[in-house]
Amino acid sequence: MEKTFGVSFMPPIITLLTDFGLKDSYVAEMKAVILSLCPEAVIVDISHEVEPFNVKMGAYLLARAAPYFPRGTIHVAVVDPGVGGPRKPLIVEAERGMLVGPDNGLLIPAARKLGLKRIFEIKGEGLLPKRFTETFHGRDIFAPTAALLAKGVSPETLGLEVSSPVEEAFHEASLSNQQVSGEIVYVDRFGNLVTNIDRGLVEALGAGFGSQLKISLEGRSPIKVRFVKSYSEAPRGGLLALIGSWGTLELSANQASASEILKASAGMKILVELA
Amino acid sequence: MEKTFGVSFMPPIITLLTDFGLKDSYVAEMKAVILSLCPEAVIVDISHEVEPFNVKMGAYLLARAAPYFPRGTIHVAVVDPGVGGPRKPLIVEAERGMLVGPDNGLLIPAARKLGLKRIFEIKGEGLLPKRFTETFHGRDIFAPTAALLAKGVSPETLGLEVSSPVEEAFHEASLSNQQVSGEIVYVDRFGNLVTNIDRGLVEALGAGFGSQLKISLEGRSPIKVRFVKSYSEAPRGGLLALIGSWGTLELSANQASASEILKASAGMKILVELA
Amino acid sequence: MEKTFGVSFMPPIITLLTDFGLKDSYVAEMKAVILSLCPEAVIVDISHEVEPFNVKMGAYLLARAAPYFPRGTIHVAVVDPGVGGPRKPLIVEAERGMLVGPDNGLLIPAARKLGLKRIFEIKGEGLLPKRFTETFHGRDIFAPTAALLAKGVSPETLGLEVSSPVEEAFHEASLSNQQVSGEIVYVDRFGNLVTNIDRGLVEALGAGFGSQLKISLEGRSPIKVRFVKSYSEAPRGGLLALIGSWGTLELSANQASASEILKASAGMKILVELA
Repeated sequence: MEKTFGVSFMPPIITLLTDFGLKDSYVAEMKAVILSLCPEAVIVDISHEVEPFNVKMGAYLLARAAPYFPRGTIHVAVVDPGVGGPRKPLIVEAERGMLVGPDNGLLIPAARKLGLKRIFEIKGEGLLPKRFTETFHGRDIFAPTAALLAKGVSPETLGLEVSSPVEEAFHEASLSNQQVSGEIVYVDRFGNLVTNIDRGLVEALGAGFGSQLKISLEGRSPIKVRFVKSYSEAPRGGLLALIGSWGTLELSANQASASEILKASAGMKILVELA
Repeated sequence: MEKTFGVSFMPPIITLLTDFGLKDSYVAEMKAVILSLCPEAVIVDISHEVEPFNVKMGAYLLARAAPYFPRGTIHVAVVDPGVGGPRKPLIVEAERGMLVGPDNGLLIPAARKLGLKRIFEIKGEGLLPKRFTETFHGRDIFAPTAALLAKGVSPETLGLEVSSPVEEAFHEASLSNQQVSGEIVYVDRFGNLVTNIDRGLVEALGAGFGSQLKISLEGRSPIKVRFVKSYSEAPRGGLLALIGSWGTLELSANQASASEILKASAGMKILVELA
Repeated sequence: MEKTFGVSFMPPIITLLTDFGLKDSYVAEMKAVILSLCPEAVIVDISHEVEPFNVKMGAYLLARAAPYFPRGTIHVAVVDPGVGGPRKPLIVEAERGMLVGPDNGLLIPAARKLGLKRIFEIKGEGLLPKRFTETFHGRDIFAPTAALLAKGVSPETLGLEVSSPVEEAFHEASLSNQQVSGEIVYVDRFGNLVTNIDRGLVEALGAGFGSQLKISLEGRSPIKVRFVKSYSEAPRGGLLALIGSWGTLELSANQASASEILKASAGMKILVELA
């Protein structure tokens, strides 16, 4: 019999984001636990190269990637410096998916993008393994929780509703006196400096494609950079500014690293105005 | 009911090759888009560690791996320094699969190995998202195109046939005066120096297993190396030459790095003759 | 028709562990071969960042991860300095799965954890490709063997039963005179020093949570470290000892690298006693 896939075929998708790296077997152990409980799960890695214990970097990457996944995707994220301590293990229920991980701010920016509804502290009595380590909740608590959610177990069955999760204090960009004040939130592999300044704020400055922007990075002399549509509009190696693939202002260089050219890194403050 | 797999079960396979690395969420965003449009796709990573903007390295890795995949596999490759500029987005139809990516030479060596048939410029009107970024065609154009091909949409529906794609000028190895002139096309993790000199050219020199080869690397004094069948025929740390797993001459060292020993890198010219 | 997954749905799982890294296309070529022969296989990476030729490191990671996978999983491992030489290609049949790889000790610690039953030298006459390279058995012998096992071909059909495989001489930890003598077997990404000293030996010393341990690393002055339940019980940056996620004693630091603090690496001897 020919196997035909209809539109209703939709295996559960579970994504993983950790600071575990790919050398050790930790990520594989999580996948093994998931597949043992939910063999039909499709597991997708978001990133395992989050810097160790950098919750903010993990929160950014998760919030970036999660909205592109199909409705119903379950996101497991583990950047967990407080493992074994008093921080709670959470399930976050959102309109377009669920998130599982520690209560340290990691999950919340993504949850807000997916339509945050309710938050549960994982209890899992009678469902999760009775014995687990206090060093690897990714494998022993978060992975089996995600697999059970993927099998259709409800968050109510796995946990108790709680309020007020820990939130990351993401710096919000703002406009005053024809100047936008923001922050570099991420530096990617290519050296692109991703800011938290969204398209609306750039437009509020009156900038259009071709405008010159005056940009001041924390403690540096201001530079002038052209606001363009794509990298290839600058000469090779030349600096430029554009709305990047996250929908915010990026400082970039055509086939070169803006991060190296400007010696800039995540967390730096940035001021933008029309030149 | 027991689920049984018959020979006719063949989910669509989509491979990914990029220079995006694995730290950022870019690869995951492409996978999310693919699974949103084609949940049954099996996604396989070829490599995401292509050096940024190194189209030639990407073309080599794609041409190497693609022929091993099952007939019908769809290969998405994104090493794309010209993103957002005038370079065309392509679908390449081949006898044994399809390729999707930028018109900068990246796809063509693999396409020739798979039996190149027709080339289409992606238009995707009414099928692809109307709004897309000019910085991340991997997620916004190439991933959805591949997913639609995997769902059975024809290349004709997604694009317009074009001719004369951009081709990489791969250096061809040649024989004259009992000397083969070639190039190091790739250095792998183990420091093996992979050349473009195929088995036939080595045999045309009259070399057999056990022969001594005289090898001259660009600007270096010639060295003598034994032509063998496997790494383990040289003493540990010793240099050797063999036909590698790509079917071409490799300069290697047993459990050591020929690249380090010889301070050699991709792009260097190489002359080979019988010693 | 709605596709429903029953409990009996269990696609074959094949894991991969190699020292190939993720830059080259070698891992993808193995996956391509597996999917060509067994399209329904679910392939899971354990690690490809084993140090080149470090069989012991590969054996550790495989033995760690394999027990978490579902019964019937097929594990392919390739850390193979002797490829093409006289070392045999093996299938190891265990109670809870099968292992495929070179006869150099790589497979045996994991096989013992899975319940080692019988060992076969791969012959595969009439089943495996007639022509294969002597440099890449991972793609040409081990991957197709695993795919055929996943399709239900028996190990007897693919090989001949043999005895006495090569075994890694893993150092065994031991207790005498109220002192445990062991070894650091692995250093993970976080700098945790994983030893071969299991929980029972620590308890035999009379240590309980809160005890001070006196720990001597090869050629160093002894240090005192508190035995705790989780990382978060030490001050940030402070050293601690605990039973890690492998079930053995780990020397760690809270949100810092014990390996850097102590300048310690895999292979070092360690003595532990009650302080």
